[in-house]
Amino acid sequence: MTAVGTTTWAIPEGYIPSGGTGPEPEMLSHETACILNAADEDAHVEITLYFADREPAGPYRVTVPARRTVHQRFNDLTDPEPVPRDTPYASVIRSDVPVVVQHTRLDSRQAENALLSTIAHPT
Amino acid sequence: MTAVGTTTWAIPEGYIPSGGTGPEPEMLSHETACILNAADEDAHVEITLYFADREPAGPYRVTVPARRTVHQRFNDLTDPEPVPRDTPYASVIRSDVPVVVQHTRLDSRQAENALLSTIAHPT
Amino acid sequence: MTAVGTTTWAIPEGYIPSGGTGPEPEMLSHETACILNAADEDAHVEITLYFADREPAGPYRVTVPARRTVHQRFNDLTDPEPVPRDTPYASVIRSDVPVVVQHTRLDSRQAENALLSTIAHPT
Amino acid sequence: MTAVGTTTWAIPEGYIPSGGTGPEPEMLSHETACILNAADEDAHVEITLYFADREPAGPYRVTVPARRTVHQRFNDLTDPEPVPRDTPYASVIRSDVPVVVQHTRLDSRQAENALLSTIAHPT
Repeated sequence: MTAVGTTTWAIPEGYIPSGGTGPEPEMLSHETACILNAADEDAHVEITLYFADREPAGPYRVTVPARRTVHQRFNDLTDPEPVPRDTPYASVIRSDVPVVVQHTRLDSRQAENALLSTIAHPT
Repeated sequence: MTAVGTTTWAIPEGYIPSGGTGPEPEMLSHETACILNAADEDAHVEITLYFADREPAGPYRVTVPARRTVHQRFNDLTDPEPVPRDTPYASVIRSDVPVVVQHTRLDSRQAENALLSTIAHPT
Repeated sequence: MTAVGTTTWAIPEGYIPSGGTGPEPEMLSHETACILNAADEDAHVEITLYFADREPAGPYRVTVPARRTVHQRFNDLTDPEPVPRDTPYASVIRSDVPVVVQHTRLDSRQAENALLSTIAHPT
Repeated sequence: MTAVGTTTWAIPEGYIPSGGTGPEPEMLSHETACILNAADEDAHVEITLYFADREPAGPYRVTVPARRTVHQRFNDLTDPEPVPRDTPYASVIRSDVPVVVQHTRLDSRQAENALLSTIAHPT
């Protein structure tokens, strides 16, 4: 089966609000990078975060096993440092095997949720 | 008329909430793969689902007739097995003729709906 | 200045709800194809609609003048026939000069609006 | 490290509502072009706006420093002229080094926010 996806992806939009409403963890405001690895070998993924006024953070390391998907919340990235809240950021995602990345945000700052999603930019 | 689209598409984001509000079926929470077949021959489509912690499910088979669109709800896929609720998944969609795929989610877990949509990743 | 965009675009998702809330026309539920013509000559655009269970409708003809954008509501397409409400459809958009197309839906069936948007698929 | 992105991007959808609800500035209705510059040199970006019935405005000039992201609100563009409210527009974004652009709208005209987002069209 041919490879699905590519090895470098970019998501310019990133923002984790510090507050939220509704039951956690489903309804906690979160940003997610949904990563699909349809290949037959594990993908070793490195996420680098970019900011407006400081040097990049990372790489954060995530393994997506063969034939699996990981819906990685940026909220849960803590090593080498947590992702700051209420701060605009962007991300570049690099993998050693081809993957596909989709970006989703659930915003629960108000009583009713808002959602956004887009396939990341393959590059 | 030249072909519109390509034969392999990926949607890394997938999640069907188990609950919802509002009149069914329009307002039931659902994930949809909107598939357009602008060609003059029927498209035989196979959908494979990927998960975080088990082997893939499928293929699920869908026919999109010539010059037609099918807005396939993942909720309605039952053969070879139903799509689990409250479980992150991803999908790869393969067709024998070129098609175009767009992913849409209606989330009605709270009183007011949220929508997300993106063209899938052509690969 | 080099051309911006391409001449054929596809939007698999389409659905105009028959109801809505809020002041019209801004808050009427609508589907829009935002077309940008950054070229120095007028773009003659043809929109064809595809359905689940009948032959395609159209072409609907729209002119996007040189260096202009037209945010065309599908609701307003009437010639050769109006777009049916509460009916899934898809669209292919062809232009004689390169353009860029983005798809947006405002859904006002409930008290609070939902929005979706994606760049259409260039093909 | 290889370049991430490309030098020309288009966003056909643009619309800044004149009203909004909730605390400002976070919850003010806004349109944003999130620009990521992962390169090691500054990006000099020019934004041109297109309208339905007048000649284009701009260029608006934005610098995105090396290894930084700028989440540029269209609301804040004032030179050579402010972006008109309640008016459909489109944009073309040109950079002298490769960047990646994502378009996001927060719509707070009603009590609960709606969000849309898409990667812009690379061209």
